[in-house]
Amino acid sequence: MLLHLSTWPEVEAFLTRSRTVIIPIGSNEQHGPTGLLGTDWLCPEIIAHHAQKDHDILVGPTFNIGMAQHHLGFPGTISLRPSTFIAALRDWTLSLAGHGFTKIYFLNGHGGNVATIEAAFSEIYAEASYAGRARGFSLKLKNWWDLKEVMPLANRQFPTGHGSHATPSEIAVTQWAYPDAIKTVAYSPQIAPTGPIREALDFRARYPDGRMGSDPAQASPEKGGELVRVAAEGLIADLAAFSAEVAP
Amino acid sequence: MLLHLSTWPEVEAFLTRSRTVIIPIGSNEQHGPTGLLGTDWLCPEIIAHHAQKDHDILVGPTFNIGMAQHHLGFPGTISLRPSTFIAALRDWTLSLAGHGFTKIYFLNGHGGNVATIEAAFSEIYAEASYAGRARGFSLKLKNWWDLKEVMPLANRQFPTGHGSHATPSEIAVTQWAYPDAIKTVAYSPQIAPTGPIREALDFRARYPDGRMGSDPAQASPEKGGELVRVAAEGLIADLAAFSAEVAP
Amino acid sequence: MLLHLSTWPEVEAFLTRSRTVIIPIGSNEQHGPTGLLGTDWLCPEIIAHHAQKDHDILVGPTFNIGMAQHHLGFPGTISLRPSTFIAALRDWTLSLAGHGFTKIYFLNGHGGNVATIEAAFSEIYAEASYAGRARGFSLKLKNWWDLKEVMPLANRQFPTGHGSHATPSEIAVTQWAYPDAIKTVAYSPQIAPTGPIREALDFRARYPDGRMGSDPAQASPEKGGELVRVAAEGLIADLAAFSAEVAP
Amino acid sequence: MLLHLSTWPEVEAFLTRSRTVIIPIGSNEQHGPTGLLGTDWLCPEIIAHHAQKDHDILVGPTFNIGMAQHHLGFPGTISLRPSTFIAALRDWTLSLAGHGFTKIYFLNGHGGNVATIEAAFSEIYAEASYAGRARGFSLKLKNWWDLKEVMPLANRQFPTGHGSHATPSEIAVTQWAYPDAIKTVAYSPQIAPTGPIREALDFRARYPDGRMGSDPAQASPEKGGELVRVAAEGLIADLAAFSAEVAP
Amino acid sequence: MLLHLSTWPEVEAFLTRSRTVIIPIGSNEQHGPTGLLGTDWLCPEIIAHHAQKDHDILVGPTFNIGMAQHHLGFPGTISLRPSTFIAALRDWTLSLAGHGFTKIYFLNGHGGNVATIEAAFSEIYAEASYAGRARGFSLKLKNWWDLKEVMPLANRQFPTGHGSHATPSEIAVTQWAYPDAIKTVAYSPQIAPTGPIREALDFRARYPDGRMGSDPAQASPEKGGELVRVAAEGLIADLAAFSAEVAP
Amino acid sequence: MLLHLSTWPEVEAFLTRSRTVIIPIGSNEQHGPTGLLGTDWLCPEIIAHHAQKDHDILVGPTFNIGMAQHHLGFPGTISLRPSTFIAALRDWTLSLAGHGFTKIYFLNGHGGNVATIEAAFSEIYAEASYAGRARGFSLKLKNWWDLKEVMPLANRQFPTGHGSHATPSEIAVTQWAYPDAIKTVAYSPQIAPTGPIREALDFRARYPDGRMGSDPAQASPEKGGELVRVAAEGLIADLAAFSAEVAP
Repeated sequence: MLLHLSTWPEVEAFLTRSRTVIIPIGSNEQHGPTGLLGTDWLCPEIIAHHAQKDHDILVGPTFNIGMAQHHLGFPGTISLRPSTFIAALRDWTLSLAGHGFTKIYFLNGHGGNVATIEAAFSEIYAEASYAGRARGFSLKLKNWWDLKEVMPLANRQFPTGHGSHATPSEIAVTQWAYPDAIKTVAYSPQIAPTGPIREALDFRARYPDGRMGSDPAQASPEKGGELVRVAAEGLIADLAAFSAEVAP
Repeated sequence: MLLHLSTWPEVEAFLTRSRTVIIPIGSNEQHGPTGLLGTDWLCPEIIAHHAQKDHDILVGPTFNIGMAQHHLGFPGTISLRPSTFIAALRDWTLSLAGHGFTKIYFLNGHGGNVATIEAAFSEIYAEASYAGRARGFSLKLKNWWDLKEVMPLANRQFPTGHGSHATPSEIAVTQWAYPDAIKTVAYSPQIAPTGPIREALDFRARYPDGRMGSDPAQASPEKGGELVRVAAEGLIADLAAFSAEVAP
Repeated sequence: MLLHLSTWPEVEAFLTRSRTVIIPIGSNEQHGPTGLLGTDWLCPEIIAHHAQKDHDILVGPTFNIGMAQHHLGFPGTISLRPSTFIAALRDWTLSLAGHGFTKIYFLNGHGGNVATIEAAFSEIYAEASYAGRARGFSLKLKNWWDLKEVMPLANRQFPTGHGSHATPSEIAVTQWAYPDAIKTVAYSPQIAPTGPIREALDFRARYPDGRMGSDPAQASPEKGGELVRVAAEGLIADLAAFSAEVAP
Repeated sequence: MLLHLSTWPEVEAFLTRSRTVIIPIGSNEQHGPTGLLGTDWLCPEIIAHHAQKDHDILVGPTFNIGMAQHHLGFPGTISLRPSTFIAALRDWTLSLAGHGFTKIYFLNGHGGNVATIEAAFSEIYAEASYAGRARGFSLKLKNWWDLKEVMPLANRQFPTGHGSHATPSEIAVTQWAYPDAIKTVAYSPQIAPTGPIREALDFRARYPDGRMGSDPAQASPEKGGELVRVAAEGLIADLAAFSAEVAP
Repeated sequence: MLLHLSTWPEVEAFLTRSRTVIIPIGSNEQHGPTGLLGTDWLCPEIIAHHAQKDHDILVGPTFNIGMAQHHLGFPGTISLRPSTFIAALRDWTLSLAGHGFTKIYFLNGHGGNVATIEAAFSEIYAEASYAGRARGFSLKLKNWWDLKEVMPLANRQFPTGHGSHATPSEIAVTQWAYPDAIKTVAYSPQIAPTGPIREALDFRARYPDGRMGSDPAQASPEKGGELVRVAAEGLIADLAAFSAEVAP
Repeated sequence: MLLHLSTWPEVEAFLTRSRTVIIPIGSNEQHGPTGLLGTDWLCPEIIAHHAQKDHDILVGPTFNIGMAQHHLGFPGTISLRPSTFIAALRDWTLSLAGHGFTKIYFLNGHGGNVATIEAAFSEIYAEASYAGRARGFSLKLKNWWDLKEVMPLANRQFPTGHGSHATPSEIAVTQWAYPDAIKTVAYSPQIAPTGPIREALDFRARYPDGRMGSDPAQASPEKGGELVRVAAEGLIADLAAFSAEVAP
């Protein structure tokens, strides 16, 4: 069930069955010469939307702009400052908590978001403590590639050249969902360099085409479809465990 | 051209042809017993995505959460505080300006956003002035129903019961784009009451099913398609005028 | 009754008769070669102070600095950022609400304030909702020129050359109240140009002497006195309706 | 010269003669059973407006709401939070600095403002340093009772019962300027108690009628006039010294 | 009892005996050619740690960075903005208040902190009022040199050349506590100049070696030890009075 | 070299030899029935202070309050909100960068700080990018237990019952440095339970004495000394690599 394609009475009814909602969250940022700018928010959206087709779960709108400061040297990247990102996560969460959702699950598509999402959780928990909200209100962050069986599959699919940014696995997922938007180039080098992440000018100097350690040429829609199916199964299982968790 | 389905080199190339980018912006909020929670961000997204199919324009990701405080009494509504909304608009805008976009056009789907978008423009202009950015950097807000010929068409389609929230015109647009998500109920009263907008508890007391002055039963996918086509034409014309505007 | 010329026991006594307070609000910004920099906060102050002479209403201190970013290219203009403006409106409002005022009426003298005042209302309502304040707490914004009969009179007085900034009507109001501060010049052109409002450098380039569409030479103290009397009557009527409004 | 009764060309001309501007600043807060709520912003306004009658100095609009948290237990008091107060002082100052004013002189009427005005100066100086503004940009705070000869006169006028809040000297100043707003009661005790200042509830419990250590019955319009004349002379002298100060 | 060398059960037990906690607070900033950069936070820490050796008082961690904007022209200075400083003081205070401390005593070592600490108190009191916290919650600021008998002793020790920054008294205190870190130079002039404090560039131009009015050559560890013993006694007495204070 | 026991000319001289500075950073929070509340800021301070005895490195003041929201259920814990923490890190960093430090190394003692420190780095880098600071300005975070050879040693010392909060390794480090502050109790159970970290009330319910998975009884001053020596060596090596790193 997609929240944005539902009515408020449908959400009110859902709340009698479950107190859990999923928010796909990512970033809009360069993904090398062939990866889509939306890759990091499209991947969790694709997986969560696929998972809800056969299960009674609720998927909220996608939080599509994240922490992409170090990619601002490449056109099309849009980034929030951490302070804005934290404020927005707080507002989303308090809105949903006000309706009675007690478990909010963020399915994340961008490694660079992890630190600030956890900072936001601290800020939200702190405010919830002050406001005397009951125990049992929980926030959870899960990267889609950390769902069960996803990385083993990706490692089998891409034994070399997976890398850490503009990876063939994330590109494959978007190829499966948006086959009309597949792009190709001759990569040089075939596998991009790796190294540390600093600010934007430094990043573009180290990684001239935007990739880090990856060979996106290995991606295919078929591999993407496999990843989506495995991730969707992992998501359902992880959600069930989160929903079943009881506060002490 | 959809930014999130493009690569950074494609955006870099687009910038040699145009300095204008469109951001669909709306709100995720209750739209009565049959309107979709996403109506206000889906409408500008639907229209902008339709317009770009035949024209060389660039549409960015959708800003999908807006100023919906007064709808928080209804499940599924998500709202930002104005301070968060302004900060986020600033970050989106500065990211895009950093890439060389000098004209940023917000196609809006929620009347409640207008005041705060204009406040954000002031904040961004103020910062731009201090930073010595050159004249010619412009921000524009346009509600999709204010595009040329849209309201005349809507008035012909819905001579009575159009109202101001959960209107048949906006519901028709989503019905055209998402025919599988059409919902129906028996409305009571057929045309909802009207009145002032105050805070959330007051709003739900005044407007028990969430509609204001509207009779959504008149919506149909066909009427929605007509609206989308007219609005897309109006958007292309309005964009051309905005892009052509020269600073004194 | 002017709050700043009253004592706290007098305000305490007033609260047993009424829960409504008026705040004149405006901006301190250039008003062309002859308009006073204080025009936009002086006008609502003049009108509200006049109205309280014969009626038992309470007028608070004037909020005299507003959203004037686009006038910063002209000496003497003082502007708040929207974030500061919202924070200040919140603090004024919470202070007054803490004393038991449930209806706070902002009589506004600057069109550029409208968007941000409404954004502030959203922020304040949101906070009030969270704090569980009872329904019935209401904020209202009214531009003095939107009071009943004011624009019809202004249109009769100034059938051409009224314009939208440094208008003869607002200048007439200040001439009536401050006859020693009347200034004259030869305007060139007689009626100023019109156009869009962007940031400060752009504004000064488009409107070299600061006026927009107006011919202030038509102003006179007599016309100002007529406007003040009509506006004060309209204010009393509008306040009565606002005070009588009952939450559902 | 009063800025709000001047035009922008008049301010532009003034800037060729002087780079100094005075801002009266105070607070709107209870001043005991007979003191006006506006006392703390009226006093510096009265003194500065008097001083400019015979001297070529520029007086800006009055900053009329300050740090009055501990008076919020009394109706009519309006207070800013320190963070709002600092932000507003910054915006006023940057606006004026943008026009070329390099010396901004705050004539203060409320002891409770001192700490936060100085905090604001630090914030503004810090920002000015980062922005590379030239040396010579200076901010100065002066309480009107610290102007030369004012306290000696007040001590002669009120050898006992001057106190520290709702003092006969400040009440006398407002009586001189607003003789129609003079209020009288029988004070009990004649001289109010003294003690520490904590938060609002504590304050009202310690000081039931709002006065601290004062006997306002000694105030008279004549004494107020003497104070205003002495303070205005002190202001002119202090301004001259500040304007003449040269950065090393 | 030092909080940071205690366990939580020890603090829990302390709370049954007292509701008062001391926070040493200072600044890390240049103190002339021989003064330690940590002088302003070391002095209150040294005094408070000494006092707790023989008395059952609780000393929290030291708040070691303060308001040092005007010293930023000298390497090693670290400064907070006032807004950060206020936010941090609020968080420290709310954390401690949450454990049941009702009297929080800041022993301060930097004159430049005074204004902003008091501003922070206003912000914290305001929030406490809104939250309905009971009367009796009190914050107190005391500069260590204002403790009883400290300045008389310093005046006897340093009848001339005490000055106001990098004073022999504060340097003596650190010499007593850190004898291995005593530094010496030939001062020129022997007694530094005095004057106003403005922003950082101005400060370094006026006071080339960082001192203001002082002759640090007069400091000695012995004099420092005398100051610490007198200050510690004054602290114990002042704390007792503060702890005994009852809300009205 | 300890910055707070140095003078500004000494820091100025150091800057001619190196552009790197170390900031120990931690948290003040409960560490079970026997761990010191200061454990998390004392450990990196102890290690960095030890390392500087024999090497020409510069150690700044300790940032002693961190992200401890989930420990607020235990007396003595002090926590910043993430927004305050980020603002403070920014101010420390900009102060140091203003003096010419281009590499700022945070030696961290609290796992709960990691996310928010990284968020702060993004905010600081973003601001540095906008300000046009040159490439080469780098921030680095290192947990002391991630220094080379530390965890292998800890695993040999504590093959079972190391756990993740109030661990025997961190307690041993403080025992070595503060032998007079060693505390003992009979633990029940000997090894504490493990589980997830949520907000404060939940945390205290899950972990009644504050430990997570640890048996602190195994700590000893000797083991602490071993850990400090190994960590100090690792720190010197890691600093050398960081200082030598050249921007591309």
